[in-house]
Amino acid sequence: MPGQSGGQCHTHASAWRHMLAGLFLGAGAMLSYGLYHRQQAEQAATTVQPVREVPTFPVYSQEEVAKHRTLADGVWVTYKGGVYDITDFVAVHPGGDKILLAAGGALEPFWALYAVHNQEHVLEILSGYKVGELSPEDSAQQAASSTDPYSSDPPRHPALRVNSQKPFNAEPPSEILSDNYITPNAFFFKRNHLPVPKVDPDTYRLEIQGLPKGPMSLSLAELKSKFPKHTVTATLQCAGNRRSEINQVKPVKGLNWGIAAISNATWAGARLRDVLIHAGYEPGVKGKHVQFEGLDRDVTGTTYGASIPVGKAVSEEGDVLLAYEMNGEELPADHGFPVRVVVPGTVGARNVKWLGKIALSEEESSSHWQQNDYKGFSPSTDWDTVDFKSAPAIQELPVQSAITQPAEGSVVERSQEEVTIKGYAWSGGGREVVRVDVSLDGGRTWHVAELRSGEKGQEAAASPPPGRAWAWKLWEVTAPLPPAAQELEIVCKAVDSSYNVQPDTVAPIWNLRGVLSNAWHRVRVKVSED
Amino acid sequence: MPGQSGGQCHTHASAWRHMLAGLFLGAGAMLSYGLYHRQQAEQAATTVQPVREVPTFPVYSQEEVAKHRTLADGVWVTYKGGVYDITDFVAVHPGGDKILLAAGGALEPFWALYAVHNQEHVLEILSGYKVGELSPEDSAQQAASSTDPYSSDPPRHPALRVNSQKPFNAEPPSEILSDNYITPNAFFFKRNHLPVPKVDPDTYRLEIQGLPKGPMSLSLAELKSKFPKHTVTATLQCAGNRRSEINQVKPVKGLNWGIAAISNATWAGARLRDVLIHAGYEPGVKGKHVQFEGLDRDVTGTTYGASIPVGKAVSEEGDVLLAYEMNGEELPADHGFPVRVVVPGTVGARNVKWLGKIALSEEESSSHWQQNDYKGFSPSTDWDTVDFKSAPAIQELPVQSAITQPAEGSVVERSQEEVTIKGYAWSGGGREVVRVDVSLDGGRTWHVAELRSGEKGQEAAASPPPGRAWAWKLWEVTAPLPPAAQELEIVCKAVDSSYNVQPDTVAPIWNLRGVLSNAWHRVRVKVSED
Repeated sequence: MPGQSGGQCHTHASAWRHMLAGLFLGAGAMLSYGLYHRQQAEQAATTVQPVREVPTFPVYSQEEVAKHRTLADGVWVTYKGGVYDITDFVAVHPGGDKILLAAGGALEPFWALYAVHNQEHVLEILSGYKVGELSPEDSAQQAASSTDPYSSDPPRHPALRVNSQKPFNAEPPSEILSDNYITPNAFFFKRNHLPVPKVDPDTYRLEIQGLPKGPMSLSLAELKSKFPKHTVTATLQCAGNRRSEINQVKPVKGLNWGIAAISNATWAGARLRDVLIHAGYEPGVKGKHVQFEGLDRDVTGTTYGASIPVGKAVSEEGDVLLAYEMNGEELPADHGFPVRVVVPGTVGARNVKWLGKIALSEEESSSHWQQNDYKGFSPSTDWDTVDFKSAPAIQELPVQSAITQPAEGSVVERSQEEVTIKGYAWSGGGREVVRVDVSLDGGRTWHVAELRSGEKGQEAAASPPPGRAWAWKLWEVTAPLPPAAQELEIVCKAVDSSYNVQPDTVAPIWNLRGVLSNAWHRVRVKVSED
Repeated sequence: MPGQSGGQCHTHASAWRHMLAGLFLGAGAMLSYGLYHRQQAEQAATTVQPVREVPTFPVYSQEEVAKHRTLADGVWVTYKGGVYDITDFVAVHPGGDKILLAAGGALEPFWALYAVHNQEHVLEILSGYKVGELSPEDSAQQAASSTDPYSSDPPRHPALRVNSQKPFNAEPPSEILSDNYITPNAFFFKRNHLPVPKVDPDTYRLEIQGLPKGPMSLSLAELKSKFPKHTVTATLQCAGNRRSEINQVKPVKGLNWGIAAISNATWAGARLRDVLIHAGYEPGVKGKHVQFEGLDRDVTGTTYGASIPVGKAVSEEGDVLLAYEMNGEELPADHGFPVRVVVPGTVGARNVKWLGKIALSEEESSSHWQQNDYKGFSPSTDWDTVDFKSAPAIQELPVQSAITQPAEGSVVERSQEEVTIKGYAWSGGGREVVRVDVSLDGGRTWHVAELRSGEKGQEAAASPPPGRAWAWKLWEVTAPLPPAAQELEIVCKAVDSSYNVQPDTVAPIWNLRGVLSNAWHRVRVKVSED
C-alpha cells in the first residue's frame, strides 16, 4: 500500500507541475486579452454557422479526453456533450492557470464555481474550439456495478487530487485553499474510511446512550427543531496532512497527502452540549469520554468510531456541533449527510460523519481508529516495537502552516523584483495563529506575513475569545527578490497564541503512521534572468 | 546591561564547571566511604579535645571564605561561626558533588535541606577540618543601609545562581530541579522586578474593583476563612528561561537565565473564581481581562502589574489561585507574601506576587510588563522596527524541556558503557507532556525517556483531566554509549498532549527580548577512554 500510494503521488505531482506551467505562459498574455477577446468573438460568430450545418465531429470517450491534460498533449475539455481542444486558448484565458484545472474533463463544475462564465460570448468563444462529441455512455452518469460497496458514493469534483478512490480520499489543488477563506464544499478535502452510507433523512435516528435519562433517539427533524441552531466556522485537518513530506524521509503506511488535507467551512447544527443535557447530562454525571459511531461500515459490519474527552463535549466554549449544514447547504454526502460531529480544534478523525450513535462512557472508543491509529510516536519507534497503548489518541493538533503559492518548481522572473507568497496557517485547541514568518533563503532571514481571517474585505472585526479560534488564517507576503539568488528556498512557519512554533525539519518528527507532519513547509522556485 | 549580564553568566558558568568537576573525582571514591568514615570519626574523636583547649584559630571574613570555592583554591565552608577547610573530604562525601554547592559559604541552609546531617558523627567529622573562626560581623546578619530600597529583601540560599542582585533574580543549580519533583522553596527560582515589599499580614488588604458589587477589600484572615482552600501543584516558568541560548545567537536585553528559571510547587489558597463570584461576578458581566497589581513598587511609586483573560480567571477548570501557602508553608517573602496569584499553565510574569489589587476590566493591564515586554516577535524584528502592539502578551507558554544531568562539558567514562540523562519537561495551558525523546548523536537517533509525575515511588496514579496538567514531568533515560563516539551531543525534545513539539534550533525563534526559548536543549559531554 505505501508503495502504491507513493506511486500515485509522483504521477499526480508530475501532472500537476505540467498543468501549473501554463500559469506563466498565460500571465504575460493577459494584458492583451481585451483586444484578443473581441477578435475571437468575431471569428466565433462567423465560424459557428458552418459547424452547425455540418455536424461531422468524431466521437470520443471520456478516457480519450482524459489523455489531453497538458499543453504538450493538448488541453481538451468537455461541455454539454461536446469535446473542445482549448490548447490555443490557455495562454489568453483571463483566469490564467485556473483553466488547466479542468483539463481532460468537464467544464461544468468549474463554471458552476466561477459564475463569470455564464455569458453568451464565453459560449461563442468555446464553440470555436470544438473538435468532437463525447460518447453517449460517458455523457450519462455511469451506473456503477451493484456489487461494489462504493457504488452509492456521490460524484466528486474532477479537480480534486485523488489519493484513494475506494474509500474516497482526495484533496483540492492547494491554490484553491488560499483563494477562498471558506473552502467551497466541492473542494473541501474528502477523507472517508469506508463507503459513503446512503442515509434516508426521513427514517434517520440518532441513538444516545450512557446518560441518566436512559437510551433515547432523535429524528433529524427533532434534532433541528428541539435545539437552537448554532453556527461555527471551523477548520478541519486530517492527521495525515502533509504525510508526503514524511514519506520522503522514510516511507510510512497511509495515504500520501500533500498540503491540502485541510479546509475551512461554516458549520451549523445543534450543540452536542445541548443534546447531552437533554439526555440528562449534568456536572458530576459519570463518564470521561463521549463516543461517536458512524453509519459507515465495512464488509464485516464494523462501523467507524471515535471519541473525545467529555470536558470538550459539554463545555460551553468547546463549540462541538452535531452539524447538519455546511456552508449554508445541507451536509453533502461526502461530509456526513445527514449529521456529522464537528469538534473544532480537534483532528479530523474525531469529527465523525454519518453519525449514528453517541455514548457517554468511562472509556475511549474501542475502535481501531481511536486505539491503534491516529497516535504519534518517536522516530525510534517502528512497527516491530510500537505499543499503541503507550501514546494518547490525537485530539488537538499542533500548529501548522503551508505555502499554497507559488508552486514547487515554478519560476519567478527576476525583472519582477519581488515575489508574492500565499498560504494558510492554523493551530488546534482553539489557539489563534498570531504570526507567520516567511523566508526566501531557507530560514536564514524572515519576513512577517499579513494574516487574514475572512474573505478579502470581509474580515472579522475582532479576534475570537481566547481558546476559541477555530478557523484558520490565510496569509500573504510580498518580498523583494534577493539580488543574486538563482533559486529560492521559500519557507513558512507559524506561531500560535501559546507561542508554540513549528519544528524546523521533518525527520525528527517522523512517525510510523506519518501523522502530525507540521515541520516548516519548504518550496523551491527558480529565478529566471528573463 | 546585556553585556554585563553576559559577563556574569560566563563567570558563573565557569565557576560551576569547576565545582561540578568534583562529581567525577568523588564518584569513584564513594564505595570506600564506609571504611573511611569510621577512620575519620576516630581521628576526630581524638583531635577534638586539644582544639577546644587551645582556641587559637585565625578569624576570617565571609569575603575571604568565599574565595575558597574550588578544589584548586581549597573548599571552605562555615558552620555556626566556625570556618572549615573540607577540601580533603570532598572526594569521600557520600552525597558526592552536592557538597560543593556550599563551597565558600554556610553549611546551615544545605543541612536544613538534607536532614541526614543532623547526626553527632557528622559534627565530629566536620570538627576535624576546622581552620578558623568567622568574623563576628559576618556571623551576624549584616544590617543593610537604610537608604537601599532592597534593604528589606529577605536572605537567600547561597547555592542559587544569581543573575541580578537588585532586583533579586536567581535560579537553582539545575540538578536540584531533577532531584526534587517538588522544588524546595529555598531553591524555587526567584524572579523579582522590584524590591521585595514588607507587608504586614495584620493590616494587609486585597482591593477588588470593577465588579458588580462595587469596590471591596479583603483582609488576609477573610481570604483564608471566607473561601475554601484549594491546593494545586503547578510549575511556574519565567518567559526568559534559557535566554542564555538566545544570547549565543545574538545578544538580547534581559537577564541571562540558564535552564533553571522554572520550578514546581504545591500552592494553596482561595480560588480567584470564588473571590470574583463573591464580588458579584456572573456570566454576562462585562470585562475581558482580570488585572492584578502588586505591592512592589519602583522609586516613582509605579507598581508591578499584569492581567489574564477573564475566561481563565473564572473557569472552574482554570485552577487560578490567590495563594497564601507554598509547599505547606506560609508564602515566602520572595514568592509574594502574604498573597500571590498562581495562574497554572501561564507564564510566570502573570502570577503577580505581593498582590494588592484585582480589577475586572475591558482592557489588559496597562503596565509596561503587559504592554511592552513579555511578547514574542519574529527574528526579523529588532528594536528599530518593533511595534509592541503587534504581538499578543504571552499567556500560555509553549512546550519545553531541558537536560539537567549530565552537565555541559562533563566526562562520561567509556567503561561505564552507558549514560544516564535526566531532565524536566513541561507545557503551558495545562497540556500534559506525553513523551520526551533523547538523542546522544545530536538528533540523528532517539531514545524515549521514562516520565515521572511525582517524587520517586509517590507518583500520581492517574493522569490529570485533559487541559489541567499544570505540573511538569521529570524524565530519565539510560542509553548505551555509541561505540566510537568521543563526544556526545545530548539532545532532548518534549511532546505535549496537543502533539506540539519543540523547534530544532534557536536562531529561528530568536526575538529581541529573548523570551520563549524552547528549542531542543543540547549538552555536549566527552567520552573518556579511561
